[in-house]
Amino acid sequence: MSHAPVVDVLKGQYEISTTVTVKGWVRTRRDSKAGLSFIALHDGSCFDPVQVIALNNLDNYADVQRLTAGCAVTATGTVKASEGKGQALEIEATAIEVNGWVENPDTYPMAAKRHSIEYLREHAHLRPRTNVIGAVARVRNCLSQAIHRFFHERGYFWISTPILTASDTEGAGEMFRVSTLDMMNLPRDDKGNVDYSEDFFGKETYLTVSGQLNVETYACALSKVYTFGPTFRAENSNTSRHLAEFWMIEPEVAFADLSDIAQLAEDMLKYVCKAVLEELPDDMAFFAQRINKDAISRLEQLVDSEFVRMDYTDAIEILQNCGKTFEFPVEWGVDLSSEHERYLAEEHVGAPIIMQNYPKDIKAFYMRINDDNKTVAAMDVLAPGIGEIIGGSQREERLDVFDRRLAEMGLSQEDYSWYRDLRRYGTVPHSGFGLGFERLVAYVTGMQNVRDVIPFPRTPGNAQY
Amino acid sequence: MSHAPVVDVLKGQYEISTTVTVKGWVRTRRDSKAGLSFIALHDGSCFDPVQVIALNNLDNYADVQRLTAGCAVTATGTVKASEGKGQALEIEATAIEVNGWVENPDTYPMAAKRHSIEYLREHAHLRPRTNVIGAVARVRNCLSQAIHRFFHERGYFWISTPILTASDTEGAGEMFRVSTLDMMNLPRDDKGNVDYSEDFFGKETYLTVSGQLNVETYACALSKVYTFGPTFRAENSNTSRHLAEFWMIEPEVAFADLSDIAQLAEDMLKYVCKAVLEELPDDMAFFAQRINKDAISRLEQLVDSEFVRMDYTDAIEILQNCGKTFEFPVEWGVDLSSEHERYLAEEHVGAPIIMQNYPKDIKAFYMRINDDNKTVAAMDVLAPGIGEIIGGSQREERLDVFDRRLAEMGLSQEDYSWYRDLRRYGTVPHSGFGLGFERLVAYVTGMQNVRDVIPFPRTPGNAQY
Repeated sequence: MSHAPVVDVLKGQYEISTTVTVKGWVRTRRDSKAGLSFIALHDGSCFDPVQVIALNNLDNYADVQRLTAGCAVTATGTVKASEGKGQALEIEATAIEVNGWVENPDTYPMAAKRHSIEYLREHAHLRPRTNVIGAVARVRNCLSQAIHRFFHERGYFWISTPILTASDTEGAGEMFRVSTLDMMNLPRDDKGNVDYSEDFFGKETYLTVSGQLNVETYACALSKVYTFGPTFRAENSNTSRHLAEFWMIEPEVAFADLSDIAQLAEDMLKYVCKAVLEELPDDMAFFAQRINKDAISRLEQLVDSEFVRMDYTDAIEILQNCGKTFEFPVEWGVDLSSEHERYLAEEHVGAPIIMQNYPKDIKAFYMRINDDNKTVAAMDVLAPGIGEIIGGSQREERLDVFDRRLAEMGLSQEDYSWYRDLRRYGTVPHSGFGLGFERLVAYVTGMQNVRDVIPFPRTPGNAQY
Repeated sequence: MSHAPVVDVLKGQYEISTTVTVKGWVRTRRDSKAGLSFIALHDGSCFDPVQVIALNNLDNYADVQRLTAGCAVTATGTVKASEGKGQALEIEATAIEVNGWVENPDTYPMAAKRHSIEYLREHAHLRPRTNVIGAVARVRNCLSQAIHRFFHERGYFWISTPILTASDTEGAGEMFRVSTLDMMNLPRDDKGNVDYSEDFFGKETYLTVSGQLNVETYACALSKVYTFGPTFRAENSNTSRHLAEFWMIEPEVAFADLSDIAQLAEDMLKYVCKAVLEELPDDMAFFAQRINKDAISRLEQLVDSEFVRMDYTDAIEILQNCGKTFEFPVEWGVDLSSEHERYLAEEHVGAPIIMQNYPKDIKAFYMRINDDNKTVAAMDVLAPGIGEIIGGSQREERLDVFDRRLAEMGLSQEDYSWYRDLRRYGTVPHSGFGLGFERLVAYVTGMQNVRDVIPFPRTPGNAQY
């Protein structure tokens, strides 16, 4: 492919007066009375289109005058300093080839006008052609690359934990069943129950809700690992923060305690936000202008701030004494809700908070019991403007304590036999956290709904495309 | 965390006579009559363990003498030049803390001896502690990082295509059904069929077999994109090359034809193989010594070779005239089987082959029809030692030709309405390919079975952990 990405042309990688070919889609066309047309040509390589000037001496100038938004075009021409506003460089075309017309421009779903975000969601296959969803896609990619880079530079190994699992024991949420049984003719066992021994995996099988338990097996061998993959919740939640299918990042670190993992979370968030600010200033300027005026400033603040460590017990006291009335009353032992988290991060501290040492009764069975026997070594990162964005913990590595906790919660040792093996054979302190990738992308872009930061969102009643 | 990764110690990042702390697991312990013990301490950060020397003046030397394979240890000591063979540097311990013992060393499943690869597969939660599976994990990580880097450097965006899909129309293979319906009490419609309108997504829903059709929507907006995610086949194939759950990389490029994408495949394979050779020489030396003696040399050959372009039609002629008898007879129109592919790549050419322009009747509906109307612009990359490793094509971008092909194959336009939209609105030539990640890892490491290059393999009858 010998054509030039628009980003390279706009960055001045082709000298003035040289000939380049660009390929992309028309955003807008404007005809001048002087007998020439201005085409804004976009190829997705960056936020801005390049301006292509078509003079009426082109053989197919009549075609050029029929170009509408969405038409695919190959334009060859000379790089020039632009006299117009808004761009430094433009291309004066010597040839324009139309690769693909738009069938009936009047009904083209992505015609050049402002569409509502809900309308775009209904056209998920065409919405990446818009400014907003294109910018989201570039930020999403930038964040994912930065995450891989962050961990790779620090000696972490990416581990792919299984999507399909016969463990239904994690209790992290409702699960989707995966099966190849003939639904019209289900095999039955002698008690009349569905006989999953005849199913593909010989057992009842589900989609994973988290890779954590699996990836602990690799942390207890390779020391520093992380997952980055899809996870699933079959919860009937129609909110702006929930998806049935979403991507998670889960680092897990041997010989790390709660404060190590809190520092890792802080370092990672700063690293990836900095990457977006540095690499995609034009996309971020668009989000600040159109979506959330604080989009850039709050990222800059996050990068420059010291995350404040706060104990859950202290937070409860602050909330009880702050003089505010909350919808959900506060007392020691309750799970903090979004209004509490946002008050603390936005009003009380004005910076991201790492909240630590939650009551054990509101946290998962695998978290390490503190010496007070009331709290566990858990932490959440609460960011101004969004609330909880990361949840993590030190894991219970002491077999006797772990077994007592299983018994307390009515869980069986047998169901966790392989997980217990990690505590039987060379157990080590270890810790990790989980970051919901779509919540991160929503936070960074300022987009209100996670459905708009994943290409094809899956929610109750919707698995289209 | 202030301790040192073993890889940093062995690379000499700590000067001789400085004090370091390392944390990891005992591989072996050897006691000398002179009153000291040699501990090979491994933390997974690289292939080799570091040698820790424990003198009998340590307070807990009696504990040291009880250390067995798999025990977790924190060792602090002085970096020294090693007098022994096999390592340049070692640590003379001033303190050794035992973090975790091995319960009953005699029955520890990963005791220090040679285990069969099948035995390790039965202990997937502990096998990353072995040399071979640890090395596989590091190569797998190195390849995935190199793939992301390769595409990122070239301006590609990572796009996450959906795992759950209501499209059952791709025909790429048997699919898993995903459901939250109560299997003991299935809702029925008035014809007595299962009423999927009451299921979570309101429709019958499956696990994806490929992200290609979805990612084409992003290629037709952002030009250069790729997927890297899990895909699924509900095929009852118990072979060394098949998994029910595996990871795929699928780049998709607007304005690219078949030869562009063939070049991309060649460049990518060379790039990622080079990364492994450069970054993990110790792991690769182990594979060459223990798993496949050609492990390194065949990667070096691949990196240095020119991939040979060959037409399917020419390949058939070569196979027919080569004087060899194949299990599956060769004539124009048949799909090449592994014996044919390997003969061509290993014996006839002695280098990777990019085979092009296959008969349309053995290829998918979305591939671009060539002018001969008999073949399609498809390509496979065949590598010596493994056969097909990549499959790709130019996509049919002409709406009228695409619609004729749908009709020929008895597929309905309605089922492909959103895919057809890409051809109705600013259609462009575009191409892409798919690479099965586990086959790549198997190829690079020389491992015989894809079940040993993914942490928790899913195959018929097996979704444990």
